[in-house]
Amino acid sequence: MSDLVELGSAADAAQSAGNLVGVFAFGLSGALLAVRRRFDVVGIAVLSIATATGGGVIRDLVIGRTPPVAFVQLSYAGIALLAAVLIFFWHPPVRVIRTPLNVADAIGLGIFCVTGTVTAFQYGMSATSAAALGVVTAVGGGVIRDVLAGVTPSVLSDGELYAVPALLGSAATATLLHYGQYTYWTGGLAGAGAVGLRLVALFRHWHAPMARPHRRRDDNSSV
Amino acid sequence: MSDLVELGSAADAAQSAGNLVGVFAFGLSGALLAVRRRFDVVGIAVLSIATATGGGVIRDLVIGRTPPVAFVQLSYAGIALLAAVLIFFWHPPVRVIRTPLNVADAIGLGIFCVTGTVTAFQYGMSATSAAALGVVTAVGGGVIRDVLAGVTPSVLSDGELYAVPALLGSAATATLLHYGQYTYWTGGLAGAGAVGLRLVALFRHWHAPMARPHRRRDDNSSV
Amino acid sequence: MSDLVELGSAADAAQSAGNLVGVFAFGLSGALLAVRRRFDVVGIAVLSIATATGGGVIRDLVIGRTPPVAFVQLSYAGIALLAAVLIFFWHPPVRVIRTPLNVADAIGLGIFCVTGTVTAFQYGMSATSAAALGVVTAVGGGVIRDVLAGVTPSVLSDGELYAVPALLGSAATATLLHYGQYTYWTGGLAGAGAVGLRLVALFRHWHAPMARPHRRRDDNSSV
Repeated sequence: MSDLVELGSAADAAQSAGNLVGVFAFGLSGALLAVRRRFDVVGIAVLSIATATGGGVIRDLVIGRTPPVAFVQLSYAGIALLAAVLIFFWHPPVRVIRTPLNVADAIGLGIFCVTGTVTAFQYGMSATSAAALGVVTAVGGGVIRDVLAGVTPSVLSDGELYAVPALLGSAATATLLHYGQYTYWTGGLAGAGAVGLRLVALFRHWHAPMARPHRRRDDNSSV
Repeated sequence: MSDLVELGSAADAAQSAGNLVGVFAFGLSGALLAVRRRFDVVGIAVLSIATATGGGVIRDLVIGRTPPVAFVQLSYAGIALLAAVLIFFWHPPVRVIRTPLNVADAIGLGIFCVTGTVTAFQYGMSATSAAALGVVTAVGGGVIRDVLAGVTPSVLSDGELYAVPALLGSAATATLLHYGQYTYWTGGLAGAGAVGLRLVALFRHWHAPMARPHRRRDDNSSV
Repeated sequence: MSDLVELGSAADAAQSAGNLVGVFAFGLSGALLAVRRRFDVVGIAVLSIATATGGGVIRDLVIGRTPPVAFVQLSYAGIALLAAVLIFFWHPPVRVIRTPLNVADAIGLGIFCVTGTVTAFQYGMSATSAAALGVVTAVGGGVIRDVLAGVTPSVLSDGELYAVPALLGSAATATLLHYGQYTYWTGGLAGAGAVGLRLVALFRHWHAPMARPHRRRDDNSSV
């Protein structure tokens, strides 16, 4: 990895630690959705692993890192499996599962938009392109989770600012990297800001605007 | 790009212009479907960008061009975003959105089957393989759009010849490339033919045959 | 391919033959689902080809073999097309289509978990990583088939041990490769074991355990 952009050892360690926490959080969200959809233990494990590793696999395919790290370091899948086992034995009632699912997902989202941007930048992408790939990394696992489970992806229809925190977190990270100000602390702040913004939007029900219906009577037409 | 097959500057310019128009057309189709599904402004932007760039990203991953051009030239995402903004502020009533969606999609389909085949051929694939990848490029964005939005992909169930125009357009393009007859004009003709065939099939309701039901009483059984 | 791990010519021939049979079996399963969903002849062909080649394309993108073999050797798509034509003209009544679909899928699953693991190992992955990619190769085509057709993927919700036979078949194959005991016969046995286990689970209705509902009254809550 001698041709990669160097971050310094503290930032590298934070990057690794962040990825592990993000994988665990996304694994929880996948397992929770699997329980809500009443899948069996195998379905819970599969959805947990796919959610936790999916964003990173997409990121690695895009930057040409093959095989993707999730296939080389099986500890990522192991952490997701651990999340699945936890949720299998202990999970909230199905009717209130939405909140912990969204909180776990928010943590993964906020972490991956930072670490995804950093990895893309390290592999030589421009700051702007790295931010774009950071967003894709952050939302990718959740999109795979939702499509596999047959629910509309949060990134499209959540109604409570899902992509925007990821975009701001990625843009902040890319700006820090571009100006050489990315450190353990500033990167952590960008991630915490993204997680926080998503959670505030979630609990205060901040909605992005809808397209105006063309005519009044159009409001209730069938889709 | 010195090892790429050369087309001549006029054909190269047409290739670039075609891709921009195709991206805009697919962006419109994604934004229109997002409005029909009542997604908010973020969902409209995300579905527009995913539809417009998805086919090209698949094409680039298949030919090993990493990072895919959509991540390097963010102008593609910008054009899709422009389409999303237009549709957000001005869109037809939801109950008649199907027709403009299909027309925009037909334009993207016809252009991408040509430009996708050309790019694959330039990267060293055989004419036959390039035609296959051209079809995948043309239908890929629409498949991503439909799967994300939770509707059955047009390529499977449209009922009015969707994949066939793309296949004919790609095959014509590959034949032109194979015999050294691909130019600005012949390529444009292949694309226009594919768009035209799709539109005629759409408005004259040309249907491909269904598999014969095995027995009469099978017709109304539950699926 | 001089830097690939050598298996011996008999095992290589078995690998090729196995892949062709697996492609045909998955092609049948895709075509059968398309008939069940009442897609037209184009939809049947597209779903057959996507199911038959999807797992291999994912495998090749992960190991960095671009373009994926399915785009280079169009005989794979041709075999899937043959399966589609067969099913178009001759298929069981829609109400009993589930069983032949599951049997065809089981054959593809059992073969691809072996051949996918072997290919990954030949391309330099560790035995453990190769087993992981073997599972993804085996379940990938079916996931693409089910997501495109709008049904919940078998790997998540089948209820009758779907991923487990693939995992055991891949693990057995990886163990054989690691200890240099992979041959025509031992590989065939691993594949036959995976197919057999899946079929027994299917017909004896072996179910993996569900997550325990948190409270009794939670059982019938809406999802």
